[in-house]
Amino acid sequence: MSDRDNANLESNGSHEPQLTREKTTKSYTYENLKGWRGLRILRPCRGMYHDVRRRLPYYPSDITDAFTYRTAASTIRMYFVNLLPALAYTLDMNRRTGFFYGVNESLFASALAAMVFSILGAQPLTIVGITGLISLFNYTIYDIIAIYDVSIYPRFMAWTGIWGAIFHWLMAIFNACDYMRYVTDFSSESFGMYVGIIYMIKGVEELVNEFSIEGATSGYLSCLIAILYFGSVYGLEKLGQSTVWKAWFRGILADYAYVFTTLFWVGFSHIPGQLKDAHISKVPVSDAFRPTQPRSWLLDFWNLEVKWVFVAMPFGFLVMLLFYYDHNVSSITAQARQFPLKKPGGFHWDFFLLGCTTFVSGILGLPLPNGLVPQAPVHTDSLTNYETKLKVIATAEGEGTDIRRPVVEATAVVEQRVSHFLMGLALIGTMTGPLLVVLHTMPAAVFAGVFFVVGWGSIESNGIVQKLVFLSSEERFLQRDEPLLTVRRRKIWAYIGLQALGVAATVAISQTIAAVGFPVLIILLIPLRTYLMPRWFSLHELQVVDDLTCTNKAVLASLGGAPTLPEQSREEDWGLERRRSEQRFGVRRQRAGSIKR
Amino acid sequence: MSDRDNANLESNGSHEPQLTREKTTKSYTYENLKGWRGLRILRPCRGMYHDVRRRLPYYPSDITDAFTYRTAASTIRMYFVNLLPALAYTLDMNRRTGFFYGVNESLFASALAAMVFSILGAQPLTIVGITGLISLFNYTIYDIIAIYDVSIYPRFMAWTGIWGAIFHWLMAIFNACDYMRYVTDFSSESFGMYVGIIYMIKGVEELVNEFSIEGATSGYLSCLIAILYFGSVYGLEKLGQSTVWKAWFRGILADYAYVFTTLFWVGFSHIPGQLKDAHISKVPVSDAFRPTQPRSWLLDFWNLEVKWVFVAMPFGFLVMLLFYYDHNVSSITAQARQFPLKKPGGFHWDFFLLGCTTFVSGILGLPLPNGLVPQAPVHTDSLTNYETKLKVIATAEGEGTDIRRPVVEATAVVEQRVSHFLMGLALIGTMTGPLLVVLHTMPAAVFAGVFFVVGWGSIESNGIVQKLVFLSSEERFLQRDEPLLTVRRRKIWAYIGLQALGVAATVAISQTIAAVGFPVLIILLIPLRTYLMPRWFSLHELQVVDDLTCTNKAVLASLGGAPTLPEQSREEDWGLERRRSEQRFGVRRQRAGSIKR
Repeated sequence: MSDRDNANLESNGSHEPQLTREKTTKSYTYENLKGWRGLRILRPCRGMYHDVRRRLPYYPSDITDAFTYRTAASTIRMYFVNLLPALAYTLDMNRRTGFFYGVNESLFASALAAMVFSILGAQPLTIVGITGLISLFNYTIYDIIAIYDVSIYPRFMAWTGIWGAIFHWLMAIFNACDYMRYVTDFSSESFGMYVGIIYMIKGVEELVNEFSIEGATSGYLSCLIAILYFGSVYGLEKLGQSTVWKAWFRGILADYAYVFTTLFWVGFSHIPGQLKDAHISKVPVSDAFRPTQPRSWLLDFWNLEVKWVFVAMPFGFLVMLLFYYDHNVSSITAQARQFPLKKPGGFHWDFFLLGCTTFVSGILGLPLPNGLVPQAPVHTDSLTNYETKLKVIATAEGEGTDIRRPVVEATAVVEQRVSHFLMGLALIGTMTGPLLVVLHTMPAAVFAGVFFVVGWGSIESNGIVQKLVFLSSEERFLQRDEPLLTVRRRKIWAYIGLQALGVAATVAISQTIAAVGFPVLIILLIPLRTYLMPRWFSLHELQVVDDLTCTNKAVLASLGGAPTLPEQSREEDWGLERRRSEQRFGVRRQRAGSIKR
Repeated sequence: MSDRDNANLESNGSHEPQLTREKTTKSYTYENLKGWRGLRILRPCRGMYHDVRRRLPYYPSDITDAFTYRTAASTIRMYFVNLLPALAYTLDMNRRTGFFYGVNESLFASALAAMVFSILGAQPLTIVGITGLISLFNYTIYDIIAIYDVSIYPRFMAWTGIWGAIFHWLMAIFNACDYMRYVTDFSSESFGMYVGIIYMIKGVEELVNEFSIEGATSGYLSCLIAILYFGSVYGLEKLGQSTVWKAWFRGILADYAYVFTTLFWVGFSHIPGQLKDAHISKVPVSDAFRPTQPRSWLLDFWNLEVKWVFVAMPFGFLVMLLFYYDHNVSSITAQARQFPLKKPGGFHWDFFLLGCTTFVSGILGLPLPNGLVPQAPVHTDSLTNYETKLKVIATAEGEGTDIRRPVVEATAVVEQRVSHFLMGLALIGTMTGPLLVVLHTMPAAVFAGVFFVVGWGSIESNGIVQKLVFLSSEERFLQRDEPLLTVRRRKIWAYIGLQALGVAATVAISQTIAAVGFPVLIILLIPLRTYLMPRWFSLHELQVVDDLTCTNKAVLASLGGAPTLPEQSREEDWGLERRRSEQRFGVRRQRAGSIKR
């Protein structure tokens, strides 16, 4: 009996074929390998091969495991959490790329990505779609191209996609995703903060645009709707995390906060009278299944001058760099430690697939989809069975004074690919005529609200902000076992100062025509952390303030095992802050916009 | 040496002349008195006499105690907290009384009240001014008079004031304020909830009015400003209660939340461009020191037909009934238990003074001032020295896991009459031409925001809401020593159901032309609580869910001592809920809008 058969048999039983897992976990590594065997670049496709081999045995259970309520709830929630921001970025991108990318392109790209990754992906939990960063990318290139000849923009973008795809495939083939294991919270928090700030700015821009297009009345009404939309989602999610009412009812609030809020505020904006008369702008839609511009789906990319083809190469490289970080961090956060995941990851294979979707999207003139940083962990969250348990802390004050605290425990995750697939089907459905009409009823103001929710979620839960709150708090009220207390305050200041510098630089560059260069800055934070910061911070300091972003063993297997840690340091010494918090308060539920550490 | 001299001497020393206090505490009572001596009505002016006699020895210290920073902070804070709502009600009242009552009338009335009560009042902590309820009263009477002959409205109101004054004096002379000691949280919470709801409604009406007068653009902008104003004050006050930054900085945030927010949003509404072009409506002002209508200050009340003079009598009685409850509850909450007050109260004397201001305001055509329910305790709060202390609760989990909780303690109150007096001077200053111009820059939207802050403050901290939260919470997370757990849930439901019924009835009647009758409903809650509810609830149940509103010994002295409690009940058995909360979390700081239990 071969290894594969053996694995398959086992997977039908326990869903966790221990033997195979250990084998492949061990078999994909470069530790203890001598000579050329230890060099990643000389062993092409090795990562992909092991990814597929490791993940394939779980495929049947990815379908059979799906028959639970959580899958249905997850499908609905992710449909909204994926679609709404995608449309929001599209509104912005549409205006700023001469109306080249429209709603139909974004829906097509999202649906394509959902189909590919739900059926073929090694990590079906990672939701792939349209991000604000690709929108930023697209309109910055538009601004650059417009200096020379705006008419070549579609073909130029096709070549950007083609080059991007090639670089993706090269990275996947030469096992380059392995370096993602060196990503720590230092850079991923900075990235999360950067994304959050960009989203907030986008929300404001959306509202400013309403003033310039439709005038003051609809401008102010849009501000009102955006703020109240934000307040509604935020309030519902906070209620969902509280201890009022029953656990099942709180679960519904948390699951469908977006759904309820969107339905309510879209309806609100259509109430006849003053509200309807304000004529706030709606989502612009065109004919179903047709490109927004009068063109065929396939772009005539072969008609581009050769010099432009080569100009597109560095842009393709930057796209790859962005996706290398963004997509892989999405996968890491979607499979973060707080989720009790049992099925292994597969970064190389997924990055190869991302090259394929990049290629197809490029030549069809779609915005390029990639892993959604704030939304990917929401998918895993929506599939997680949480139990709010009671933690009783006895005090020295006598009977009845026990402190009773709710501790949320993630008991299991419904790991499957059906919810992702159904969400993709729903996106395809949305591309049809009748549902496009429904989309057209949605005011742009709601999307400004979406920007605020997603952006603020990413900022509020960010480690930079949390350390700032720590530093601002009166010290006497801090619990004595708080690990940050063992680090000198000015060292914490220095650490978040470096992060803030990185964020400020990327936000600033994003406002200029050099915006396409921002992935370089983000990526540079990794070597800064790995090579320079250990000179300025002691090992203990870094262990307290920083943590490996990727800590799940099943996930690390795909990246060639845990990274080499500094001398005298065990894995248990890292993430002290997180460990303490989880022990004390349990895991936090993933809010729609927050990036989980 | 007489008692008085003796008292004066002592007061210069310790500020607390123990001897006199005990003497008068004991001397004004009807307990253990036989025959006609035990009947209040047969001993006219006895309450007032004792009030003055008890309070007068403290007069010098009321001035000498004032030289602290708290007095200055209090003056500024109270100027805003008194003026802004007064103007807000005036905007509403002005429109709905045919523009008879304007800003000048309200300022005059507020200044008059501040002068009288700061100089002559026995309880200078009780801020007296224009409330939303007198505004409701005035425009309801306007609606009634308008059915017959609108031209007699000013004179009719003058007679309402005159009759009201007479009833006030009678109540004061015959010691009727004593019955206020029977007020429990049952009625005062209902009243607080009623006031909160009315204020929220007023805020909405203010915004609706903006739509109908100035159109959609300024309407939406006004909604925006009102919501953001609310959010700003609320956020600043929450920050002030947190443990971030230093205690002194938090103190400034809490003290001046209104000031900062008002300055900011008034400035915001004047930013040139879209904002200024929206032309949102501003506070309407007229010439300084002149009535809003072309008339002399003194109304020709002697020219009213005799039949109308007598029709005014029941209205005067209702005014007195409203003030009897509203003013005295203001004084009680301004001198509530959580404030460590040392100087005694004087309800009878103050109610007599209130008759005088009612008389003068009546014949001058001013809105009648009385004690401000949500604002009076804010005054005491602004004069209180708080210390945020650290409470360490040892747990059984080992070293470093102690729970460290901030506990706010009120260490002392700067009891004086200077802040009240200076605030009055500031109000007089506001009546001058230049400052009226400043007032005219304030958008009505800011006042809608004020309504929301004051109204929501009164609702959020209300016992009805807190019991609702308790009933909604999952029981397993409640501390075991929570007194409410000893009462059956349906009994708590029944209790707040009765309160809600009272609130609903008063809110409903306030929307009709019978609105002037609402004080009757509020007052009826007292006998309902005293005579009927002990039949439906056990003594223990009432002890947990209810509490005497007036519990401060120094205050009760003026009301003839503590009320007769039911058999087998000691004072310590009451207010279990409050005692437990104070012990655990300390006193809560008085938010601008909240009514303290």
